[in-house]
Amino acid sequence: MISLDKAIELVINSVCMTDRLEQVSLSQGINRILARDVASDINMPPFRKTAVDGYACRMQDIANPLVVLEVIAAGNLPTKPITEGTCSKIMTGAPIPAGADCVIPVEDTKILTDGKILFTATNPKSNICEIGEDIKIGESPVTKGTHIKPQHIAIMAALGCHKPMVASQPKVSILPTGDELVEPTEVPHVGQIRNSNGHQLIAQVSACGAIPIYQGIVRDTEAETENALKAALNESDMVILTGGVSMGDFDHVPAIMERLGIKILFDSIAVQPGKPTTFGVTNNKLIFGLPGNPVSSFIQFELLVKPAILKMMGCSNPFPPIYRLPLATQYTRKHAERMGFFPVQITPEGQVMPIEFHGSAHIFALANANAIASIALGVKELNKGDLVDVRPI
Amino acid sequence: MISLDKAIELVINSVCMTDRLEQVSLSQGINRILARDVASDINMPPFRKTAVDGYACRMQDIANPLVVLEVIAAGNLPTKPITEGTCSKIMTGAPIPAGADCVIPVEDTKILTDGKILFTATNPKSNICEIGEDIKIGESPVTKGTHIKPQHIAIMAALGCHKPMVASQPKVSILPTGDELVEPTEVPHVGQIRNSNGHQLIAQVSACGAIPIYQGIVRDTEAETENALKAALNESDMVILTGGVSMGDFDHVPAIMERLGIKILFDSIAVQPGKPTTFGVTNNKLIFGLPGNPVSSFIQFELLVKPAILKMMGCSNPFPPIYRLPLATQYTRKHAERMGFFPVQITPEGQVMPIEFHGSAHIFALANANAIASIALGVKELNKGDLVDVRPI
Repeated sequence: MISLDKAIELVINSVCMTDRLEQVSLSQGINRILARDVASDINMPPFRKTAVDGYACRMQDIANPLVVLEVIAAGNLPTKPITEGTCSKIMTGAPIPAGADCVIPVEDTKILTDGKILFTATNPKSNICEIGEDIKIGESPVTKGTHIKPQHIAIMAALGCHKPMVASQPKVSILPTGDELVEPTEVPHVGQIRNSNGHQLIAQVSACGAIPIYQGIVRDTEAETENALKAALNESDMVILTGGVSMGDFDHVPAIMERLGIKILFDSIAVQPGKPTTFGVTNNKLIFGLPGNPVSSFIQFELLVKPAILKMMGCSNPFPPIYRLPLATQYTRKHAERMGFFPVQITPEGQVMPIEFHGSAHIFALANANAIASIALGVKELNKGDLVDVRPI
Repeated sequence: MISLDKAIELVINSVCMTDRLEQVSLSQGINRILARDVASDINMPPFRKTAVDGYACRMQDIANPLVVLEVIAAGNLPTKPITEGTCSKIMTGAPIPAGADCVIPVEDTKILTDGKILFTATNPKSNICEIGEDIKIGESPVTKGTHIKPQHIAIMAALGCHKPMVASQPKVSILPTGDELVEPTEVPHVGQIRNSNGHQLIAQVSACGAIPIYQGIVRDTEAETENALKAALNESDMVILTGGVSMGDFDHVPAIMERLGIKILFDSIAVQPGKPTTFGVTNNKLIFGLPGNPVSSFIQFELLVKPAILKMMGCSNPFPPIYRLPLATQYTRKHAERMGFFPVQITPEGQVMPIEFHGSAHIFALANANAIASIALGVKELNKGDLVDVRPI
């Protein structure tokens, strides 16, 4: 049994980054991993421009009424230089006329009867954005490895990168195992349960930006499991099995992994839920054997598989932000031999409220959870107000 | 100028929830809003089952060696009742045989030379999941208004809901306005900038689960703006314009909105950046006039438009969780007449580090931000260690 940190290290160090790249449109770029730095082909701002609607003039003149020379709209060029006692009306984003060193905001002016304008406020600011103030030609504000979100789309658009180069999406096969499983379309007989893991994993894999390949329910025979795993390895970059990794007589997954030449790097981790999580590697492909209980499977995916998928696409920071927030109430557990994870709700006041949780088969506990909190190995009790690490789900 | 809270209230109260619903597959259900409670057609667990791999027996017998009657695999039914001095080997998830009241885990047993098994630990637990312990027939663990995430997919699968009924996706038209704009495929001349807002909004709208309809750049003439807005209103549930809402001579948007019979509910909010944000309603359609600066547009979308889109689809909690975390360093600002938002990075230690930010045109500030922090109206300074509200982006 190894620690979670060690397990994460073994997984991340086993990831072989994909060398398959593709160009996508800006709108398809969301949730993909950028494969090249995006350098600016222009200065931003590309010209001296005004940050406000107002009057471009000389700072030394602003105590006096100013003659308005022209109106400069955004997208147009000034035609007249500013000289003593003059100004030009100018719209946000428009180029600053020659001679001007400030823009007085329209709301800080009044128009005199002779048509001149007068600055009515104090403490004038320049309100000028200088050339290259935000970025200079050749600089790369978004870099290789960026996990692309809407704000990065804006930046790439501004830089003229309308076809970003991104990592291709890894193919991730999903194999739920278990004789007791039936698909959601069926009504389970006694002894059977519906397959929830498989569909949960399809959603989790998609949310990471990879392509899920659902292989269907695999029965608990060695032959069927071996054939299904072999076929899945052939057509995918990663395989996730659920079930078949525990202490039961029909838990064949680890033995079959070994028989197929998969090097098993760990087969149990000191985490609750999810202890029997198994991980192996063959030919740069990763194989995860997750526990069959859906909460274990969900949490182990978040802890281990998601960072692996993101790293496979070259993501420079494959780990989610962890928030340290105060517990709203006491939390206790009976055993502390493993690091624990439990579903919680972050209240509107920013406190962490544990949710009733019967254990790793209790998927309904996640219905109202918006985060998973952790409790350290060796710790049985947390008090109200103690800071706990939470990761949003 | 109204407060942000008042603006949010006006927007949310103007939302008319869609009555267009559709059934989707489980994998298409992600990021959609559930339109019906999902009731369970079965008890969960549907039968008494074991939570561990082990031996089902009678608690009163566990001090003695036990004869193993049979092996019960998950998905199979027990055939022999447990009587004094007997047990059955049982795999996680399998039904408990009649007569048994506990399962001793396989790792807490040893096999004696005569083939009997002996419990070797102390403090036995029952390890039995009772019928309906997690959910009873007719209960609805996921309800109308749920924003569907992977964990809800698992629950719906378990309940046999393989075609969830969800709200149809609203159509949201995007109209960037401005004579200075060129598309990302072009190289801007002097006085021009690339349209980043439009593409950022396409990504933001998609991320909310709505359908973006990009209408292309609209020139700053009253006729073109009016025609474009009229056409967009015809084919969409919501229209987002950017630019044209400030104090400039060519900022026609509010006047055109009024001319088209749109009831303007506010045209400026006490928020920095984003003061000239304009909002109106006509025929149950919402129209947002967002500022032309991309950081303003980004933030106002997150604050106002995103909750409106989620509410339109019936989301019961359209607001994101806000985290209250300590500032890593002092933060000051010159003016405090408006509530302020600024880009930050949440450090691995859970502190909030402000990012260099030149103002609302400085989109590159968002490249490395993973959250937006707020500072209250009237407050000019926050000290290191002060708790600030952040929303992840």
